[in-house]
Amino acid sequence: MPASDELDAVLSHIEENTDRIVSDLQELCRQKSISTTHIGIDEMAALILERLERAGLEATIHKTGGHPIVTGRLTGAGAKTLLFYNHYDVQPLDPLDEWTSPPFEANVVDGYVVARGATDNKGNIISRLAAFEAFLAVRGELPCSVMYIIEGEEEIGSPSLLPFINENKDMLSVDGCIWEDTFREDVPVLSLGNKGLCYLELRCRTANVDFHSSHAQIYENAAWRLNWALASMKGSDEKVLVEGFYDDVTPLTEKEEELVRLMKPYDGAERKKKFDLRRLALDLPDEELPRRHLTNPSFNIAGMDAGYTGEGVKTIVSGRARAKIDCRLVVDQDPEKIRDCVRRHLDRHGFEDIEVELLFKSLPAKSDPESITVKACQEASRRVYDAEAVINPFGSGSTPTWMVIRNLGIPLVGTGVGYITARTHSANENLKVEHLINGAKYMAAICESFGNA
Amino acid sequence: MPASDELDAVLSHIEENTDRIVSDLQELCRQKSISTTHIGIDEMAALILERLERAGLEATIHKTGGHPIVTGRLTGAGAKTLLFYNHYDVQPLDPLDEWTSPPFEANVVDGYVVARGATDNKGNIISRLAAFEAFLAVRGELPCSVMYIIEGEEEIGSPSLLPFINENKDMLSVDGCIWEDTFREDVPVLSLGNKGLCYLELRCRTANVDFHSSHAQIYENAAWRLNWALASMKGSDEKVLVEGFYDDVTPLTEKEEELVRLMKPYDGAERKKKFDLRRLALDLPDEELPRRHLTNPSFNIAGMDAGYTGEGVKTIVSGRARAKIDCRLVVDQDPEKIRDCVRRHLDRHGFEDIEVELLFKSLPAKSDPESITVKACQEASRRVYDAEAVINPFGSGSTPTWMVIRNLGIPLVGTGVGYITARTHSANENLKVEHLINGAKYMAAICESFGNA
Repeated sequence: MPASDELDAVLSHIEENTDRIVSDLQELCRQKSISTTHIGIDEMAALILERLERAGLEATIHKTGGHPIVTGRLTGAGAKTLLFYNHYDVQPLDPLDEWTSPPFEANVVDGYVVARGATDNKGNIISRLAAFEAFLAVRGELPCSVMYIIEGEEEIGSPSLLPFINENKDMLSVDGCIWEDTFREDVPVLSLGNKGLCYLELRCRTANVDFHSSHAQIYENAAWRLNWALASMKGSDEKVLVEGFYDDVTPLTEKEEELVRLMKPYDGAERKKKFDLRRLALDLPDEELPRRHLTNPSFNIAGMDAGYTGEGVKTIVSGRARAKIDCRLVVDQDPEKIRDCVRRHLDRHGFEDIEVELLFKSLPAKSDPESITVKACQEASRRVYDAEAVINPFGSGSTPTWMVIRNLGIPLVGTGVGYITARTHSANENLKVEHLINGAKYMAAICESFGNA
Repeated sequence: MPASDELDAVLSHIEENTDRIVSDLQELCRQKSISTTHIGIDEMAALILERLERAGLEATIHKTGGHPIVTGRLTGAGAKTLLFYNHYDVQPLDPLDEWTSPPFEANVVDGYVVARGATDNKGNIISRLAAFEAFLAVRGELPCSVMYIIEGEEEIGSPSLLPFINENKDMLSVDGCIWEDTFREDVPVLSLGNKGLCYLELRCRTANVDFHSSHAQIYENAAWRLNWALASMKGSDEKVLVEGFYDDVTPLTEKEEELVRLMKPYDGAERKKKFDLRRLALDLPDEELPRRHLTNPSFNIAGMDAGYTGEGVKTIVSGRARAKIDCRLVVDQDPEKIRDCVRRHLDRHGFEDIEVELLFKSLPAKSDPESITVKACQEASRRVYDAEAVINPFGSGSTPTWMVIRNLGIPLVGTGVGYITARTHSANENLKVEHLINGAKYMAAICESFGNA
């Protein structure tokens, strides 16, 4: 019997078990697990443990400095092990009054499971477990071994994940990893990396009070100083003028260049209309937008304030001013080195007094687009969605995936059940039942291709 | 009998009537008159009318578009008329819990009348009325005619004063004006003018939303645009780069240059210590501070905000940014022309999209330092305080006095009972009884010198 036919039986089994799979998702969604406010976390970890065991995995709860991490292991055919990495925590519910179905009831409404966590990330978890269960039911074993990490702090920056990975490298000796991601229209996106983040706070203080502005001629204004400092760091041509900022930007590989050329241009006109944009940055044409977006680092003012910010008139000289600078980094920029570059830049330009604090950092990372993990996802996409997956070699956001890619030294593909309609992080988060079932089939096909590679 | 001896009798009469004068001040302070919240305004205007009549003036309440203006007239000896201009409204009370004596009980505590309005401006009013009453009691007439304007909107920008002045120019045909001002240590300050004010709001809007900062490479950030626009308008050498900004700055007269040279240097070291200053603007030496402070226009950021301004981390591209620009103007800069210069500057530098709104304006003005009104105050200072008054030819703040100077075409001197200890606009505003009585003598001496000039 050819492999594809064998897989057909597994995929059919998933289809036939739709009702059970939906009720499995409802079970997870009905357990609250808001990491921000620490609601239901321990109960959720216990349920995940029990659920992994029910699916046939050997499961463990690991204590951390924060929320527990649950792992599972299941030995399959062949020598290769595929790691799945997900999270059991969810975002807070607000705005609460916009939910049309109670967020922890997980009702099925018109073919959609409506719940906080339905897609992000409990739908992803269930799609993976349903795939494993189908293999065990139809074939008695998986086409590859699997390792599962489900953490409880993804929505709050995954502070316990890196130490956990570093302390468990033997247990996590695997050949590739599948994380979560989205669809573009009906085609799965394969995200092979993430941007780093260097989030700085700049604080300027010229006096211990705000002065009446009739003294503006003789006292320094912190708002002006901060303004001059910021203007020295980036020009209106969007070039970052901080010396050393671009030093560690690695050129794209030939394969990455090819993937960038294949990217669908963004629809600039549509975005201008939708968001009432003055213009796109640098008036870039549509075909240059993906490259600019995905391969360039940014140096962004996420916020600034000084002096009087209310309505109307107040006449003061600001003694304090503050800006938040949010840099998205590309491989191999390092947030601490960027912080040092900014510090040196300020010192060289006469702004020694402006304080710089690194409030948050994460590292950039990217995976080899020619790895077997990527190829397995491409094959699975053709098989289940009858479509060529969209490869995003870089990722646009800053996610915890760098901890896996860099610290385990393996390729990672972000891909999963998240359609644009799923409203993740918003009110009325949902997962269409059809997308859940297709997602389970997709995960089964990935395991199959990965095992056969 | 020489004039000085005659005046001695008037001054003695004031001294002998200390208790009555204090109780007159208490009477005014016990009537609430907060213009911001429109508390007690009409009752206060009625009390002022009654009080002017009791002092022997022919008084009138004038309706305006806002709070009533009360005027009084008293014909005295000679041909000259001196205008007194004060206000009966007071500042709000906050912070209320810091008052150690109820703000409208006007108790005498250790020789100080403690009340909202005790100095600003009811103490000034009573000092003037006590002077008039003493002349009438001792001599039966004043050494000059007096006209009195007491308005009720000084603390909220005097919106009704200019139309009132323009509609009553015949009634206000006078030879000079006395307004309020402060002391430097124990010496009266004579302020001969005021700065103008051009208060602008600059608004930049690049999109109808804030974007997730993972899009910083492709969307414009309003915070950056505003930053670049501001940096184009003033350099770190404090020079305003807005074309035309300095065009209407009139050079100082020879007399003004002389007065500036005579000014006491500011104590920079003491201010640096007190306010924990990084430095004084441009590291100016003490002797240059008064000239810089009083003769230069300013271009100050009174406030700016964009994006996320709370604690910690939020990663957004700001779609909106706002700055408040507060320019103190010198003679003969005009706030509307300055607004137009800023508009043209933005247009020329590629910031056509940034909106500019003039939120508040007032004009600069200055009085002839050699006028008889100034000389009368100088003589009175020598007589009552045994000190040479400090002449400030310009004034540092933006006050309604320009309406009198420019629209009546007369010299105005700001001088009065306001010591630095009086805590005007703060909790526990007060007036020392001794300062009130000296203030009344000072006003009597001014009238005498003005009448004899």
